[in-house]
Amino acid sequence: MLTNAPRGTKDILPSEINAWRYVEDVLRKVCAEFGFKEIRTPIFEHTELFQRGIGDTTDVVEKEMYTFLDRGERSITLRPENTASVVRAFVEHKLYADGQIAKLFYIGSMFRYDRPQAGRYREFHQFGIEALGSDSPSVDAESILLAITVLQRLGLKDLQLKINTVGCPNCRPQYRKLLQDFFGTKSQELCEDCQSRLTRNPMRILDCKNPHCHEIAMNAPFLTDCLCDDCRSHFEEVKKLLDAVGVHYEVDHSLVRGLDYYTKTAFEVQYPPLGAQSAVAGGGRYDGLVEEIGGPATSGIGFAMGLERVLLASEKQNLLPQNTEMTDAFVVCTNKEIFQSAFNIVMKLRDRGLKVEFDYTLGSMKSQMKKANKVQAKYVLIFGDDEFARGSVILKNMANSEQKEITFENIFSELQGVEK
Amino acid sequence: MLTNAPRGTKDILPSEINAWRYVEDVLRKVCAEFGFKEIRTPIFEHTELFQRGIGDTTDVVEKEMYTFLDRGERSITLRPENTASVVRAFVEHKLYADGQIAKLFYIGSMFRYDRPQAGRYREFHQFGIEALGSDSPSVDAESILLAITVLQRLGLKDLQLKINTVGCPNCRPQYRKLLQDFFGTKSQELCEDCQSRLTRNPMRILDCKNPHCHEIAMNAPFLTDCLCDDCRSHFEEVKKLLDAVGVHYEVDHSLVRGLDYYTKTAFEVQYPPLGAQSAVAGGGRYDGLVEEIGGPATSGIGFAMGLERVLLASEKQNLLPQNTEMTDAFVVCTNKEIFQSAFNIVMKLRDRGLKVEFDYTLGSMKSQMKKANKVQAKYVLIFGDDEFARGSVILKNMANSEQKEITFENIFSELQGVEK
Repeated sequence: MLTNAPRGTKDILPSEINAWRYVEDVLRKVCAEFGFKEIRTPIFEHTELFQRGIGDTTDVVEKEMYTFLDRGERSITLRPENTASVVRAFVEHKLYADGQIAKLFYIGSMFRYDRPQAGRYREFHQFGIEALGSDSPSVDAESILLAITVLQRLGLKDLQLKINTVGCPNCRPQYRKLLQDFFGTKSQELCEDCQSRLTRNPMRILDCKNPHCHEIAMNAPFLTDCLCDDCRSHFEEVKKLLDAVGVHYEVDHSLVRGLDYYTKTAFEVQYPPLGAQSAVAGGGRYDGLVEEIGGPATSGIGFAMGLERVLLASEKQNLLPQNTEMTDAFVVCTNKEIFQSAFNIVMKLRDRGLKVEFDYTLGSMKSQMKKANKVQAKYVLIFGDDEFARGSVILKNMANSEQKEITFENIFSELQGVEK
Repeated sequence: MLTNAPRGTKDILPSEINAWRYVEDVLRKVCAEFGFKEIRTPIFEHTELFQRGIGDTTDVVEKEMYTFLDRGERSITLRPENTASVVRAFVEHKLYADGQIAKLFYIGSMFRYDRPQAGRYREFHQFGIEALGSDSPSVDAESILLAITVLQRLGLKDLQLKINTVGCPNCRPQYRKLLQDFFGTKSQELCEDCQSRLTRNPMRILDCKNPHCHEIAMNAPFLTDCLCDDCRSHFEEVKKLLDAVGVHYEVDHSLVRGLDYYTKTAFEVQYPPLGAQSAVAGGGRYDGLVEEIGGPATSGIGFAMGLERVLLASEKQNLLPQNTEMTDAFVVCTNKEIFQSAFNIVMKLRDRGLKVEFDYTLGSMKSQMKKANKVQAKYVLIFGDDEFARGSVILKNMANSEQKEITFENIFSELQGVEK
């Protein structure tokens, strides 16, 4: 136990870090193009925030949160997602004060106590955005397109975009009634969970994973049949904007969200080659959330993307960079007496931005040259006794094996620009 | 409570993020030059790891850890520092298997339940390195110089480097005896903590913050008086290498560490203008730690740097970048009928790497131009009704206010390279 990371957590090792950094760089670049700014919120929050901001009857809050009392007896929870935290920060710091839309993104660890399985961890990483302060359908389209753009920029093809509208507190009561009438006649055939959903929240029957419930739900009435005018025209406008950009999507009526503060647009991006865990991003509008959390009534929309799945998908398609970092120079020195001078040159070259390595063991010439090869050194600087006595070193170009003697003063000019 | 981050934690807002990213970029760049590779370990670990890896009689472990039972009744702890975790990962993934030194660095959140005060948080950020697998004094010098280089690269001047040697399990027993003899005759004058340290761990009296203990300790014997040959020559070599590079340091005999797995070199970098919290980085050699945690006997050395303090120091000296991000183009469109075309151009320009904004409210021409100014747009593209009917738009250069009509096809060529 002492030498194992806790179950469901994972180290990101140096051999894997370039892939993560590459994905993070793409995320940050696309967000800059779209005008989204990074925000970082604490790893834990007051538990109450998630109870209110996610909903205290959800599985996440009921079964999956890392909740504990701190030494001051306050209940705190490791964030299971980041939307509630970002909205809390938006309210706490009055990011609405300038009257402009706040376009925020985050990249970070989230925590859910769930059964670990392939591509699913207890500490996992999400990228996500929240756009707070506008109810314009163009923000919906822009958010959806940001998710798509990120994934396309990474080189993923054959993405499936599903969209839906979940209405608003005006039109949902009528739809609930319709669903209760429809499912009520078949309640004996529904799973136990759905029987309880029938009174509490019949919309959630629509995305039940039970195959029989799913089959029954296929014939359920659509929310689109009873949308209010505002929700209807909003959804039409979102679709028109996606059409204008030429992005393919499918309207999926089973894409629902159970809570009152979710409104209008819901969407999901799937990458089918991932199989059972094919959803890589999901989100939607939540015009009621900021107020729920204690802020002024503010429209909002966002999505979250699972980075472990994105990396898995990218890896399957060989889209991730290889670990091919070269070393600019390797300094070879076998003589303890002159090592201090060699060490000084190492530091001076690094100070000029070069990646420089040397041998800590002062091993034999042969073993040091082997190490230089191993770290893919472009050049080797050999501090030989005779040359050192003459105030010079041997510079070897490892690409063509050419070598020449150069004076100390010329080391920097000879190696200038090699780090590019 | 709902709308406040937990006490001692802090959001990093978009207005502050550039400073953090700038510092992180410098850290990553210097680490690349020095050949250190990034590793990321989980936010929490089994509690036992820190009890063993930090020492269960330390203040950190006794009073400051965020420790709790997870839903599987395992005791887990939010990492209070990262050395134990990195060593655990080193052992778990057998990073020693290739026989080479493993040079690792990390940047991340750490957690200590402490009284929050200026520049001191319960969730705080550390950068640090661990070099595992070599007992060469050149690794000590390199680690110290990495800390100094990072801070110098950020522009900080007047840094104070203090170094010491804490010996090893061979020479420390003799020194302990000397200290017990020395302090034993003055035990009545020592503070309560130090009286108990006298038998348990007399070396820790040397860094007691009590002014009277401090005064007494000034006359205590030095460890350097009873170093074994190995420790003595190691320390001499470290100093020679620092001298070779021309770095100033002070040997500070009060720089001690209480636990057995700490060996030889200890160091601290201070930035005096920070006052009471002037230590920005501290570290040392820990040749006994890997074995203590359950791995093969392996030499190691590392340091940690407090990023909140580094940012505070950099801010005091005006060394941090301002938030001066420009927008490459702002697309103005007041007509709902042609907005979809404008939106499509926005997306196409972003796809070419440009930072592009538009107005979500379709406000008046005047209010949209105001927004374009606010986001510091280099160019504005105006989708006017008449121009649109002719298949063109107005392009306005905001630097010189020149504007001209260009066709849709020419938008991309006109704006090519503007993001540079």
